[in-house]
Amino acid sequence: MGKQNKTAITPTRAEDYPEWYQQVVKASQMADQSPVRGCMVIKPWGYAIWENIMRVLNDMFKETGVKNAYFPLFIPLSFLEKEAEHVEGFAKECAVVTHHRLEKGVNGGLEPAGMLNEPLVVRPTSETIIGDSFSKWVSSYRDLPLLINQWANVVRWEMRTRVFLRTSEFLWQEGHTVHATAQEAIERTQMMLDVYARFAQEYLAMPVIKGRKTASERFPGAVDTLCIEAMMQDRKGLQAGTSHFLGQNFARASEIRFQSSIEKEEYAWTTSWGASTRLIGGLIMTHGDDDGIILPPRIASAHVVLMPIIRKPEDRTTVMAYVESLAKELRDKFYHYRRLEVEIDDREIGGARGWEWIKKGIPLRVEIGPRDIADNSVYVGRRDKGHRERTSIKRDRFVGKITHILDEIQQTLFERALLFRKTHSITLDDKQEFYEFFTPENHEQPEIHGGFALSHWCGEDRCESKIKEDLRVTIRCIPLSVPSEKGKCIYCGGPSSGRVVFAKAY
Amino acid sequence: MGKQNKTAITPTRAEDYPEWYQQVVKASQMADQSPVRGCMVIKPWGYAIWENIMRVLNDMFKETGVKNAYFPLFIPLSFLEKEAEHVEGFAKECAVVTHHRLEKGVNGGLEPAGMLNEPLVVRPTSETIIGDSFSKWVSSYRDLPLLINQWANVVRWEMRTRVFLRTSEFLWQEGHTVHATAQEAIERTQMMLDVYARFAQEYLAMPVIKGRKTASERFPGAVDTLCIEAMMQDRKGLQAGTSHFLGQNFARASEIRFQSSIEKEEYAWTTSWGASTRLIGGLIMTHGDDDGIILPPRIASAHVVLMPIIRKPEDRTTVMAYVESLAKELRDKFYHYRRLEVEIDDREIGGARGWEWIKKGIPLRVEIGPRDIADNSVYVGRRDKGHRERTSIKRDRFVGKITHILDEIQQTLFERALLFRKTHSITLDDKQEFYEFFTPENHEQPEIHGGFALSHWCGEDRCESKIKEDLRVTIRCIPLSVPSEKGKCIYCGGPSSGRVVFAKAY
Repeated sequence: MGKQNKTAITPTRAEDYPEWYQQVVKASQMADQSPVRGCMVIKPWGYAIWENIMRVLNDMFKETGVKNAYFPLFIPLSFLEKEAEHVEGFAKECAVVTHHRLEKGVNGGLEPAGMLNEPLVVRPTSETIIGDSFSKWVSSYRDLPLLINQWANVVRWEMRTRVFLRTSEFLWQEGHTVHATAQEAIERTQMMLDVYARFAQEYLAMPVIKGRKTASERFPGAVDTLCIEAMMQDRKGLQAGTSHFLGQNFARASEIRFQSSIEKEEYAWTTSWGASTRLIGGLIMTHGDDDGIILPPRIASAHVVLMPIIRKPEDRTTVMAYVESLAKELRDKFYHYRRLEVEIDDREIGGARGWEWIKKGIPLRVEIGPRDIADNSVYVGRRDKGHRERTSIKRDRFVGKITHILDEIQQTLFERALLFRKTHSITLDDKQEFYEFFTPENHEQPEIHGGFALSHWCGEDRCESKIKEDLRVTIRCIPLSVPSEKGKCIYCGGPSSGRVVFAKAY
Repeated sequence: MGKQNKTAITPTRAEDYPEWYQQVVKASQMADQSPVRGCMVIKPWGYAIWENIMRVLNDMFKETGVKNAYFPLFIPLSFLEKEAEHVEGFAKECAVVTHHRLEKGVNGGLEPAGMLNEPLVVRPTSETIIGDSFSKWVSSYRDLPLLINQWANVVRWEMRTRVFLRTSEFLWQEGHTVHATAQEAIERTQMMLDVYARFAQEYLAMPVIKGRKTASERFPGAVDTLCIEAMMQDRKGLQAGTSHFLGQNFARASEIRFQSSIEKEEYAWTTSWGASTRLIGGLIMTHGDDDGIILPPRIASAHVVLMPIIRKPEDRTTVMAYVESLAKELRDKFYHYRRLEVEIDDREIGGARGWEWIKKGIPLRVEIGPRDIADNSVYVGRRDKGHRERTSIKRDRFVGKITHILDEIQQTLFERALLFRKTHSITLDDKQEFYEFFTPENHEQPEIHGGFALSHWCGEDRCESKIKEDLRVTIRCIPLSVPSEKGKCIYCGGPSSGRVVFAKAY
């Protein structure tokens, strides 16, 4: 590869997308594989993004009246079994605690001892254990609605894992609410979907389609699952958040009953909704380029790095004083309800330093040397532009404009991702064209696919599963915003009342 | 009990302190027992305190250069075994995952299936799993110091549990740092102890003694364990935070090595330090009274509750408008880097409403009715004063003074607790007096004990363990601030170079 085309990440996205993803995660210092099967280590640069996600979502949840609480990590097996579909859905991927002690075994090594009477499952999700508390907290319609959220780790023993996207342990929030009427619970389900969509678009700069899952993709035990779906740069779909209307299923399983205003005892109506560290994977695959990740400023681990250029030792004092004073000035400014996060990197000059920050995706890189200081200006690189494009700008003007520049970057990232999705979404009514769209041989590499196909579907499981079998393509969602339109099922030609989104998915 | 002496909590502290504690936790709606052995449910009013603890400690850690990260929940058994004393210390209380699936068994019920090749221990603490990452992250002295913190849940299978104080699962932060020299690691150990002491005193209003643990009370695998110790109202000691100098023990166990500046390969020096949801238990037992808990304003779940007094329906609009406008005015004010948290409780008037907020320990209760509004004043109760004492105060004056009042409450709580500790701390040089001080029969109830005895100790394990055997009294710490003083061991009469703190402990 010629110097002209040098990029920081090998391979490029076009060369090998899945491997590009692994290399970007590594190069950005966001996360490591861990020695524990399928678990990840989230490094400070990645965890800072999660902290920002928590901060913003917490505020959004709180605005709707939700309060945080914390429930046990372990679920007694008998609890999980209370809802038949639910346990069926999670039984194949449960970490099970069976002992509460270690003891020297016959060969001298430590072995599990102190067997439990009842095995405990490490929570894969908490409907049943939280339901037990709710059954005690709710007795009258006056106790409703009950609006609770929990930030927690959960475990689903995945066989094929990929950092951030699918890991045996991940971090998430799970909201759980209880209502007196079906209508109110349905409205809450939609309200939280809207929160996720707004968060994804306004903070992650990730365009999403709001939709409804088909029966086969529903949360185990739910009556209805709503979701937001995003398109990654390999044109696959990523489910980025889900909100479930649980009907009275879990209220019956956990005996969540209340005395209504007319003194009738009724089962309550519940919802649950969650978003996880998977969002960080989505962020990388939405905005990354061949030089690494690009962090949307509103959620970035840090906003700007200042890199002093010190070629002669005698310049150090002056340059560092200038850099420190600029850092202080910037840190006093606010951007989206938090102070600007400023990094100072005074390691020795060289390509490595600048490249590291490009790979980490920091929105703004600022170089400052004696000549810049003499001119009272700074030399700025924007991560959303190519790595060669840098501009000298007067210090005062830079400080004055910085939040505006960050918003410009945020906007650019969103528009770029939206354009990408539009470019790779297509309306298809012909079965052969549909099959060609999703056949890998018709695309530049085996792991890059057609994109989103909006096609008609008759509503039958059979057609859905045939397409899945043939193409590994699934219905990502039945979009909420697409108007009903009569048509013919793309698979069987049977009558359909609207288009759905087909895609390969993470 | 006459009306005169009515208190909200039965029994009172003097009647039965342990039962008072359970009842206060329940009445304050801070936490519930859970159906999972030894695990707790932290309810919103309790979790909000934990969120404040996290927020403040995060800022304090960050000021010292620490960054947050996240490591796996599970530790392979072989990792735990790498440090002999460490595994020995935790083997008796480990939750062990042995299977990764559930399957229908012969009797039709679900049973653990898919046995793991190597059992996984649910982390009781993370030195060994974090050490594995550190061994990869550290290669040169340029990578040091490495300063990492994790907020996480941990599990220690306790046989006798008490909510917040000793639970099988609890929430905590664990800091882990790596240094090039012993000196630097020792300084970090002390620095973090100072952070904990400052946090306990300035935010929790909990006076603490900084000290060093004796060998028998040290963290398993540590070279030195520093701690902060507080006195509860039953005069027992509570360890409220620990900071460990780990020497090179864990660096050797996990192979954390670095190339020094003179290109020599060396084992690094590590520290770890932690504080947990136990602090909430300490808060309750330091400040609670016979009416419930009293929350120090700087860490309180909320600062003030506004209770409209609406006796006639036609007053509702006026009163609520006034209350809402006051809430808005208060919420615009800042107190210790966060906005004032204001609750509005418009449930019907009655003793129950006011008592609920007293039991929950909110610093300020404000009643507002038509007469108060006509006078442009509010009727204020301070939680640190008796529940009968309430004062009318002009609205403007209240708004202007509120942060000052909150600081007064904070100060009062600290001084009250400090006075209590002084009153129940004693310097003892006579063995018989020492034994009498700690004999339950000499005190008003079996669960209330003497307090802190500052006595000489020769440094021998034997004397320490004899006293423990006889009295269930342990050395809480060797205080860092007490000057060395020659004396005779309270047990054996052997030579001693300083006094230590003896007490019964949680």
